[in-house]
Amino acid sequence: MTRTIVESKKRTVVIGFDEPFCVIGERINPTGRKLLAAQLEADDFSTVEKDAAEQVACGASMLDVNAGVVYNSNPDPNQTEPPLMTKLINLVQNTVDVPLCIDSSVPAALEAGLETCDGRPLLNSVTGEEERLEAILPLVKKFNVPVVAISNDDTGISEDPDVRFEVARKIVERAADYGIPANDIVVDPLVMPVGAMASAGRQVFALVRRLREELDVNSTCGASNISFGLPNRHGINATFLPMAICAGLTSAIMNPVRPQEMQAIRAANLLNNNDQNGAVWIRTYKPVSDQTNQHSERRARRRRNRQ
Amino acid sequence: MTRTIVESKKRTVVIGFDEPFCVIGERINPTGRKLLAAQLEADDFSTVEKDAAEQVACGASMLDVNAGVVYNSNPDPNQTEPPLMTKLINLVQNTVDVPLCIDSSVPAALEAGLETCDGRPLLNSVTGEEERLEAILPLVKKFNVPVVAISNDDTGISEDPDVRFEVARKIVERAADYGIPANDIVVDPLVMPVGAMASAGRQVFALVRRLREELDVNSTCGASNISFGLPNRHGINATFLPMAICAGLTSAIMNPVRPQEMQAIRAANLLNNNDQNGAVWIRTYKPVSDQTNQHSERRARRRRNRQ
Repeated sequence: MTRTIVESKKRTVVIGFDEPFCVIGERINPTGRKLLAAQLEADDFSTVEKDAAEQVACGASMLDVNAGVVYNSNPDPNQTEPPLMTKLINLVQNTVDVPLCIDSSVPAALEAGLETCDGRPLLNSVTGEEERLEAILPLVKKFNVPVVAISNDDTGISEDPDVRFEVARKIVERAADYGIPANDIVVDPLVMPVGAMASAGRQVFALVRRLREELDVNSTCGASNISFGLPNRHGINATFLPMAICAGLTSAIMNPVRPQEMQAIRAANLLNNNDQNGAVWIRTYKPVSDQTNQHSERRARRRRNRQ
Repeated sequence: MTRTIVESKKRTVVIGFDEPFCVIGERINPTGRKLLAAQLEADDFSTVEKDAAEQVACGASMLDVNAGVVYNSNPDPNQTEPPLMTKLINLVQNTVDVPLCIDSSVPAALEAGLETCDGRPLLNSVTGEEERLEAILPLVKKFNVPVVAISNDDTGISEDPDVRFEVARKIVERAADYGIPANDIVVDPLVMPVGAMASAGRQVFALVRRLREELDVNSTCGASNISFGLPNRHGINATFLPMAICAGLTSAIMNPVRPQEMQAIRAANLLNNNDQNGAVWIRTYKPVSDQTNQHSERRARRRRNRQ
């Protein structure tokens, strides 16, 4: 049974085929968020604190922490990312108690994150590129952490799913050479937009199934990429996730603040018998009349407190 | 390639792994609809006409027609169902042009429906019970139609999915003895409520996959049974359907008037590359601004017409 164990100071999360789907909150990432990038450059971490708390409140099992800024004052990420990663990790683990996913393309930032982070974080990421394998796998071994393996290599991202599968296999084998077990590799099969490549959904479902059946590894993906460029993106994402889960996907880096996607994941957990006695489902979606009663009670209590 | 072909007078629908999911509208069924049953007894078919038109407008590919009334004036369905089935089929095929699914537990009603129905309807259903096999398979052969095969037998409905699979296999083999090919058998693996049996979802996904991989047959189910007794049933149904589709389900008897379930099915078609150029998805969910414009235009046109 493939179990990838991640930990914060006090909490353990297991990624696995018989576990609730692992939602990795994607929000703490300045890429494409100009306002957040400017705040970070000005040493303002209020948005990060808010995003950390909100994502966990909405049901994230883990939080991704990405320090990928390009400062106006210093355009070299090799200089700016490592100290920012240290600050972000410290701040987030003082705000919430969930395991973290340390996300950077700068190896020194990954190492800074690993040195700062409590527990057993997930490292994000290694690829099949030779230089990355040689830079990242020793870190994975040294810190004894699991790692996200993205299935592209020195030739780029193949449109052929068989090539992407072979890249994943290569990473798993190379990791084994370092003594890193397959259950510490979480493969990202790479999700293309279905609007640009009509077979993108089928590719992911087939790949995830092979990853599970042939390599026996956990998997993750940037889920929302599937709907890029199409209308009603949340409707597509909220269908893609349960289909991919049915094929074997065990985690995703995604926005847990979206109720439609989170409802689909809670239902998939229920339908996969990974929500014992339906407790999470029933607690979250109990009839409106019950919630109205509770709501009225809360309002009455607040009114009393104000008096 | 397994293709089950159903036809109305003018329209052909193919049920298959590389076809859009086949939505069979369930509404024309007096079981559990007291008002409809009373209307039918009083020869009032207004609800049937409305339900037929509405279900097709909402995206049903086929309509199920069930004449399972118990009249106050005559409690014997062997007497009442056959003439009612004839009336219903005539009415529905004069109202809409989609293939029909003739649904009854009374063999004489099935035969009356087959004699009345244009094109190539789907017969619903045969089971693994000896008496049913002997009564229904000759009809299937005589009228050269496909048939829904429900995976229970003389021992009842097994909770063991392997037993249900073997019942399906027996029906396929028995049909072959009559010269009925496997692509004219659409197996219903029987969906239990996940609130009563925690493994119900997983069972269906595994069964549907085996039906596809080992028996190479199409499948159907009464989808909404999965959520019986739980809150937010549409949220469960709308996740169950894409998961089952990912496992290989090719049709369902369901309520097409529900937007959440239909959105999930349209997204599953898109993600399975069964919605060419995303045409159906984009037409249905194009941005609100476009729809608002169209809406305004329609309103302006109506205003002009009234003047």
